[in-house]
Amino acid sequence: MVRVGIDVGGTGIKVGVVDEKFNIVGEGTIHTVTDIPFEDQVQHIAQCVRDTVAAAGFTEDQIESVGVGIPGIANTSGEVIKCTNMGWFHLPFRKTFQKFLDVPVHIDNDANVAALAESVAGVSANTSSSVFITIGTGIGSGIIIGGRIWKGFHHIGAELGHVILCLDGVPCTCGNRGCLERYCSATALIRMGREAVAEHPESMILSMAGGDPANIEARTVIDSAREGDPVAVKVYGEYISYLAQAIASVVNLLDPEVIVIGGGVSKAGDFLLDPLREEYRKYVIFNDQPMPEIKLAVLGSRAGIIGAAMLS
Amino acid sequence: MVRVGIDVGGTGIKVGVVDEKFNIVGEGTIHTVTDIPFEDQVQHIAQCVRDTVAAAGFTEDQIESVGVGIPGIANTSGEVIKCTNMGWFHLPFRKTFQKFLDVPVHIDNDANVAALAESVAGVSANTSSSVFITIGTGIGSGIIIGGRIWKGFHHIGAELGHVILCLDGVPCTCGNRGCLERYCSATALIRMGREAVAEHPESMILSMAGGDPANIEARTVIDSAREGDPVAVKVYGEYISYLAQAIASVVNLLDPEVIVIGGGVSKAGDFLLDPLREEYRKYVIFNDQPMPEIKLAVLGSRAGIIGAAMLS
Repeated sequence: MVRVGIDVGGTGIKVGVVDEKFNIVGEGTIHTVTDIPFEDQVQHIAQCVRDTVAAAGFTEDQIESVGVGIPGIANTSGEVIKCTNMGWFHLPFRKTFQKFLDVPVHIDNDANVAALAESVAGVSANTSSSVFITIGTGIGSGIIIGGRIWKGFHHIGAELGHVILCLDGVPCTCGNRGCLERYCSATALIRMGREAVAEHPESMILSMAGGDPANIEARTVIDSAREGDPVAVKVYGEYISYLAQAIASVVNLLDPEVIVIGGGVSKAGDFLLDPLREEYRKYVIFNDQPMPEIKLAVLGSRAGIIGAAMLS
Repeated sequence: MVRVGIDVGGTGIKVGVVDEKFNIVGEGTIHTVTDIPFEDQVQHIAQCVRDTVAAAGFTEDQIESVGVGIPGIANTSGEVIKCTNMGWFHLPFRKTFQKFLDVPVHIDNDANVAALAESVAGVSANTSSSVFITIGTGIGSGIIIGGRIWKGFHHIGAELGHVILCLDGVPCTCGNRGCLERYCSATALIRMGREAVAEHPESMILSMAGGDPANIEARTVIDSAREGDPVAVKVYGEYISYLAQAIASVVNLLDPEVIVIGGGVSKAGDFLLDPLREEYRKYVIFNDQPMPEIKLAVLGSRAGIIGAAMLS
């Protein structure tokens, strides 16, 4: 038996066949097309599953289940509540999919799915509780409690990016102010880098960006800090402090067995992890007790497929 | 069979005998004494249990279990990790208690215990997930998931009061800055009231306090706002906004079935609840979806005994 994981993204939909040891033994991709009816979109996805499973040498009878990770929210009845990128609002994904391929179908948020993947086959394997935080353009998160995804009673939880970290703080795209992702995402680090070079044009951050603040990326700030540029060191230290306070807040509230960090910023590796681990302890209220370890995600882009396949 | 709940407080230790319908059918109290050895403290408590159970007309054989709520943290092995008020640090409560009374013994944080009480016999009865927030001198909280207390893997969670709500904000007694309880507790409302009357001595807040800012209590600000005093209305509105953002943050992360508010400030009743419910929606990220209802706790001071009795 195999499980199929589907990773729905803004530009492509990846389908993977996952074996019992969590290896991806077959992969297929289709372009994301949003200007056709929902039923046609789902039919294309089902056809890609069919083709990918066949190409991997399995029959349809060997499909144990199909799981889908979406950049949005879904309920446990297999309905998409909201997936703006795909133009899906309150649509019966499971029921529609099963018209074309009659197998068990599960659907969940992509960060929840990645959290599950790491907790089953990744860095948090063999733990019963974890919080996965993906740091990219925004902040995504997934909560695992008792080995299962906790997405809330109304399926609207695990949105760490919009927990308020700073009253009356930086305006957020969501309409509120001071959301955590305005301080802890790659976008936040870029903003902080740009603000710093406006005051300190002598900073390596600007020269690494070819003299144009518009070219500053998260890695520009990180690499400049690594090189010891004083402005970058200060900006990066401030960013680490924000992230540490965010993670400590999660721990003060939820105290999972482990905190897992993924996403683009996590590529900084130990240069992120070492100062973060040190700084975060300060903000944990019972910091004289054992506390969650912060670890880096290990599955990378495979987490989307593996986690989706593990949905149940 | 009956269960015994023990509510350990700074000045007194209350013992209650709780029947199967969650009624307290017998009560006893002993003074908190901290200058005697731990074993003697526990022996006094066990004796009070014995006496209270007998006075209620039950035998020791009819005790199903004894539960204890402490202002501190404990693990699932019945050890107190930390209870500063009692001077208890890493002490084997269960083992010690059972020397004097050999029954099943459970011990947990008092806010967790109150959360459990409300979820079993109070306003959140028949829900499977809830977050209880008690608003007093500080902020206490308890999380119920799957009908059980979630206090974290290392037993250091559910400390909502020390989630950071404002980066670089008001200094907290814990040593950090911007902790949620610095904005949402009764103490915070008192501080805000005092700051307001320093600028606006004409406010009713000051006259209600007999002209002395030191006499301002949370209820002074709330009552002045209820009377329409413009300064108090502004201060109270700001306080409601902070509390709304705190609750929305809990919902964005955890999305329980219901949020329960207890503690001194909750005595404001609908004057708290109505504006809070309206304001909180703004900060919930998926606020076009069903979301947790905010309700007031109903068990009051009985929650400590009833919840402790329900520990398992």
